[in-house]
Amino acid sequence: MSILVVGTVAIDSIETPTQARDHVLGGSATHFSYAASFFAPVRLVGVVGDDFPQQHVSLLRERQIDLEGLQVVKGGKTFYWKGKYHANMNDRDTLEVHLNVFGDFDPHVPENFRRSPLVFLANGSPMVQSKVLEQVVGPKLVVADTMDLWIRETRDELLDLLKKIDGVVMNDSEAKLLTQEENLVRAGQRVRELGPKFVIIKKGEHGAMFFSEHETYVMPAYPTEQVVDPTGAGDSFAGGIMGYLAEQDNFDPTTLKRALAYGVLVASFTVEDFSLERLRRIQRSDIDLRMEQYQKMLSF
Amino acid sequence: MSILVVGTVAIDSIETPTQARDHVLGGSATHFSYAASFFAPVRLVGVVGDDFPQQHVSLLRERQIDLEGLQVVKGGKTFYWKGKYHANMNDRDTLEVHLNVFGDFDPHVPENFRRSPLVFLANGSPMVQSKVLEQVVGPKLVVADTMDLWIRETRDELLDLLKKIDGVVMNDSEAKLLTQEENLVRAGQRVRELGPKFVIIKKGEHGAMFFSEHETYVMPAYPTEQVVDPTGAGDSFAGGIMGYLAEQDNFDPTTLKRALAYGVLVASFTVEDFSLERLRRIQRSDIDLRMEQYQKMLSF
Repeated sequence: MSILVVGTVAIDSIETPTQARDHVLGGSATHFSYAASFFAPVRLVGVVGDDFPQQHVSLLRERQIDLEGLQVVKGGKTFYWKGKYHANMNDRDTLEVHLNVFGDFDPHVPENFRRSPLVFLANGSPMVQSKVLEQVVGPKLVVADTMDLWIRETRDELLDLLKKIDGVVMNDSEAKLLTQEENLVRAGQRVRELGPKFVIIKKGEHGAMFFSEHETYVMPAYPTEQVVDPTGAGDSFAGGIMGYLAEQDNFDPTTLKRALAYGVLVASFTVEDFSLERLRRIQRSDIDLRMEQYQKMLSF
Repeated sequence: MSILVVGTVAIDSIETPTQARDHVLGGSATHFSYAASFFAPVRLVGVVGDDFPQQHVSLLRERQIDLEGLQVVKGGKTFYWKGKYHANMNDRDTLEVHLNVFGDFDPHVPENFRRSPLVFLANGSPMVQSKVLEQVVGPKLVVADTMDLWIRETRDELLDLLKKIDGVVMNDSEAKLLTQEENLVRAGQRVRELGPKFVIIKKGEHGAMFFSEHETYVMPAYPTEQVVDPTGAGDSFAGGIMGYLAEQDNFDPTTLKRALAYGVLVASFTVEDFSLERLRRIQRSDIDLRMEQYQKMLSF
């Protein structure tokens, strides 16, 4: 089954305590697509300027990511983000952000993409996310990401959106902000009461939590000593989850839990290098091997 | 097999964002002993003043905790700690601390206790911990806890101690402080290189990590929405681990991993009420039931 993703395609400049990279490929839709492409066909909707390097287009095409929905604005510049990670590699400061062509992004879902059974609304304003939803026809599963900005500035629109989707993914701090609950278990349950059938809370290096009507569980991150750049980890995580669900064509609790584990593992590769570098060097079999190790780690 | 624990027996006053308790039973040796007593016989070495309420003594005796090593100083006052938790229930401020009789604590291990096969050196100065070690005869397993104060102020003595023990338990921030490594996987491995055969890093609400020569793994905390008071969670965790190991009389990797899980689960009960209140209301079968749920949660 195919997955439609709508989000940013970006150019990132990243500083970590030990290394830096200038103008590498980034963006939520990019990280999501690449991660999901290990499992299922992906259709991307986004926007770039005509400064967007052809090599990045090729890289995504190599993974069979359908770029029919990637709008190229003539004379426009691609979304640019420059960030710097703290020593703990979890906190980061945004040094520069230029929305550029993304500032006027009015997502148009190509006719061919409208019947995608799985839809992922990467982090964006709930208004833009809702506009995408209006264009898709009969999706089986819609999952959205969000962030503190939208929780603070467009709360009502976000609450509307939450009633229309199946699942939502957000960070721990965002779940607390949305619900005013400091306990994450309660925060997750409260978010679920706002509408979605399931809620996934990302805890960065500490893993992720899952909440549905009948289940609450937590999965640790895969312990890696090689954290080079956490950028894109959250979107890779979502990509692994949605990719596995699309591959299985099944959203039952057992499949969802396994999907979450795949999300954790794809993200564990993403952070081991900058941009898509680590994912470029792996195959599905590497993810499955890590899955065996992860399952072994969690059995006693 | 019996476990010897040496540490504090204290009176705590605790404020949380929603509740407070004055003058309840606390202390590292107390929390450890009570947790371990679900699994194996415990021998406690500590000191209190003659203000220490008899009801607390009875409570520990009811769990078959051997108090022959609990020194009562006439005219002395028991160690007192007053703390206040932040909204996140992880960070806390110490409002008052009176070492009282613990300030001059010179642990004397009773003759009967010296051949205890398992020894837990609860958080204390490495000099005091070493003094205990000198008094025990042929232990099978010695595990110590420590804290930032000793890492900062008595680093050399701590490094000496680490060479003489089998396992060490510390918080994530303490492991980073000791090794100057921000990545917890590397920090854990570096601590192990300082001497102990295994290292356990406590991550509070995010669970724990384990490091030995051939194994690195992480276990999430059991997700509870009922975090009333985290005081004693770390010592309960250690108590669950050591208790299970003593019960099994076996320290192989499989048993150690299962012991860690028991530690996580006992601690998950501890935080559900103040002091020992929650543990007082459970039995071993409740822990085993939660173990079944925990294993189910981690299988996919």
